[in-house]
Amino acid sequence: MDFAAQYADANTRQHLIELLQQFGSRVQISRAVLEQHGQGEDSYGCYPPDAVVYLHSTEEVATVIQLCHQYRVPVIPYGAGSSVEGQLLALHGGISLDLSEMNQVIEINAEDMDCRVQAGVTREALNQALRYDGLFFPIDPGANASIGGMSATRASGTNAVRYGTMRENVMGLTVVTPDGQIIKTGGRARKSSAGYDLTRLYVGSEGTLGVITEIQLKLHPIPPVIKAATCQFTDLASAVNTVIEVMQCAIPVARIELLNHLQMKACIQYSKLEGLDPKPTLFFEFQGTETAVAEQIELVQALAEEHGGEHFSWAETVEARNTLWKARHQAYFAGLSLQTGASVLTTDVCVPISALAEAILSAEAAAEASGLICPIVGHVGDGNFHVLILQDSADPEQVRKAKTLSQMIVEKALSLQGTCTGEHGIGFGKKHYLIQEHGESVALMKQLKQALDPLMIMNPGKVFD
Amino acid sequence: MDFAAQYADANTRQHLIELLQQFGSRVQISRAVLEQHGQGEDSYGCYPPDAVVYLHSTEEVATVIQLCHQYRVPVIPYGAGSSVEGQLLALHGGISLDLSEMNQVIEINAEDMDCRVQAGVTREALNQALRYDGLFFPIDPGANASIGGMSATRASGTNAVRYGTMRENVMGLTVVTPDGQIIKTGGRARKSSAGYDLTRLYVGSEGTLGVITEIQLKLHPIPPVIKAATCQFTDLASAVNTVIEVMQCAIPVARIELLNHLQMKACIQYSKLEGLDPKPTLFFEFQGTETAVAEQIELVQALAEEHGGEHFSWAETVEARNTLWKARHQAYFAGLSLQTGASVLTTDVCVPISALAEAILSAEAAAEASGLICPIVGHVGDGNFHVLILQDSADPEQVRKAKTLSQMIVEKALSLQGTCTGEHGIGFGKKHYLIQEHGESVALMKQLKQALDPLMIMNPGKVFD
Repeated sequence: MDFAAQYADANTRQHLIELLQQFGSRVQISRAVLEQHGQGEDSYGCYPPDAVVYLHSTEEVATVIQLCHQYRVPVIPYGAGSSVEGQLLALHGGISLDLSEMNQVIEINAEDMDCRVQAGVTREALNQALRYDGLFFPIDPGANASIGGMSATRASGTNAVRYGTMRENVMGLTVVTPDGQIIKTGGRARKSSAGYDLTRLYVGSEGTLGVITEIQLKLHPIPPVIKAATCQFTDLASAVNTVIEVMQCAIPVARIELLNHLQMKACIQYSKLEGLDPKPTLFFEFQGTETAVAEQIELVQALAEEHGGEHFSWAETVEARNTLWKARHQAYFAGLSLQTGASVLTTDVCVPISALAEAILSAEAAAEASGLICPIVGHVGDGNFHVLILQDSADPEQVRKAKTLSQMIVEKALSLQGTCTGEHGIGFGKKHYLIQEHGESVALMKQLKQALDPLMIMNPGKVFD
Repeated sequence: MDFAAQYADANTRQHLIELLQQFGSRVQISRAVLEQHGQGEDSYGCYPPDAVVYLHSTEEVATVIQLCHQYRVPVIPYGAGSSVEGQLLALHGGISLDLSEMNQVIEINAEDMDCRVQAGVTREALNQALRYDGLFFPIDPGANASIGGMSATRASGTNAVRYGTMRENVMGLTVVTPDGQIIKTGGRARKSSAGYDLTRLYVGSEGTLGVITEIQLKLHPIPPVIKAATCQFTDLASAVNTVIEVMQCAIPVARIELLNHLQMKACIQYSKLEGLDPKPTLFFEFQGTETAVAEQIELVQALAEEHGGEHFSWAETVEARNTLWKARHQAYFAGLSLQTGASVLTTDVCVPISALAEAILSAEAAAEASGLICPIVGHVGDGNFHVLILQDSADPEQVRKAKTLSQMIVEKALSLQGTCTGEHGIGFGKKHYLIQEHGESVALMKQLKQALDPLMIMNPGKVFD
């Protein structure tokens, strides 16, 4: 089916934009704004929407979606613009709903360790708001993403090994459905068997089933003791095998991140890390009571030592710890700096922990064989890692090699019973992998899409065609 | 709409049963078998199916569902028969799919701490199979339920406060859809952002969207140290406030169960518990390393003491611990024994922890005012508790009072932002509460049902009408 044909023509879209003038200067059609909203932090190019509307409430979102529904115009939700799989491309034009001004923390229930936020609140702003309650929201994908966007892509990041992903930390949602109705899912009870789990259906639906406007979140107490350290290895296999043993011993580390030698080289340069060599390195964080942390550290150090790990280098002060994690969060841009003018094709596979060594070592070997520059970084405690494949988009040979390498890494992960995306989502870029991974069940996903969004106006061309 | 009218007539059903003779003696139509399959452990009466088929594989399930689909005959999945909200009633007749002989543990991946089981495996059988791997499956609803049934009702139980519910512990499923197709959801990676979360859609769908035939489960290492204790209080408020503080301090207790004085009286008699009085009592379990457990115990004891709790009474041996938890698991039957010939109307509300005292104290007060005998027991760490309302079904006055009381307890919980069911499901008995709790979003649930099961053959009359 040719989707473009079923959407409104240019005149109708023009008429819709005039109707949207009710939002005054909060409707934007300037080229700069459209282009800014037509892409994320990915390399799929820019597909600008017809207009951008900055919305302030669930009711406003409902109003706009009702209009888009009536006129058959695509809707693309936009949070912080940090998605990496082309989730923001307006492939068929349409209205970009910018939720960044929906940035209110609606309530903090400190005694129940939960809160409710508008979709545009960023994770850093949320943690800022929580700082006097002794609580924090742990999910940390690196970018200062919006909570709405993180929910929509089922994001995770460095703390997921201890605290889970958005799947485990979203308790409920307010959603505007594709026909402009407002529904609430989930609730504040810690568990419930009341009806279908609509919350989890919307978490990870990437804007294709409706727009998430409010999120009820689980919070966690700030641990009394936090200690961070790095441990360097002479070879990648030893670092990965240390991770595997830490996980198999079920030691509750809060963070366990791997950077290969190339990624370390990039981070040392880019983030000016001192006292570290461009060798395979693990970044650890331990959280808990004094005794619990001491116990974890003793166990992990023993395992690292068995695998030839060097002495732990401790980030003793809060500043040193922040420097370390900032460097980790900048790994993407650090990697990018290794090749002037390059764009990045990022893989995001995640495998069962016992298969991690095979997945990651074969990925590094294939990357080296390709001749491309490919730093590797990962949330390895979960079995999740990213190969940042640098490519000169103007060089067809590099583009071809990058694509082949990416495919090889994903196919290897799938053959090891892994997934093609641990945390970035399917978006525009991984639709063929979704089919490869989930086969028959993709048809059922499409049945759900068809049932909830028969006009296909919600973020069309994402997740599946 | 009159559903009964759209299903096959008696002749067609007879024809279907003849076709099912391909399963030989595994098709049963004897009155005893039909009646056994026409109810669970609830008080909604018996609605026998037209036939019961004992199935051995996903393919066999698909074959039967294809036939039921073709002839428009209802399908009711049956595991261990331990559901408590009328999930098993064949309200419109139909075929009961007995999966109890699908009892194979398909694989145990000890190094990844996961396993795959057929739906009929019971939780006790699974833990028996895991005993040499140092692993266990923690979800423990009391009854020796089947893993398929536990998935379908999103079960939890005593360990959920530490390990989560079926929602958090099911990694993937094999499902036969309402038209008889076989799909696989989820996978073995610890996290994934690949497409809609069909796993979570099926977990808690109570057999209304298809039949779960295989389940991939997270496992957990058996903790090196396990200690159980009871602590008695002079009044219910003190016990509940202890629980609230333990949870607000985020102490990772493995189990924290409350029994009110009436429930304790019942358990002491029924399970011959020694050294305990019929007073409000907390049952604790602590798990972890020696130091972690010691730390938890110290903190919890201090909190209990502040609220006037008596000295902890330790179940020192494995046998003593088993006696304690067996008594807890028999609480339902113990409660039932307080009134000869009574049936039970069970509430299952779950509220945010800060609202637990108000919810539970008002429930006990209302129960006492009703004049009915109502022991109370709960997984209070999650905010979940059950009032077992005993009633003589032949006494209209008791039945009316029981219903009113149940409604009052649910309405109070909803007013406190809780849920009408923490773990039993909606089934046949709580459909009106689902609407009260979830309002508009129930229409969306129905849209999903309509999309996946347009003929309404899957467990009709459950979750919603």
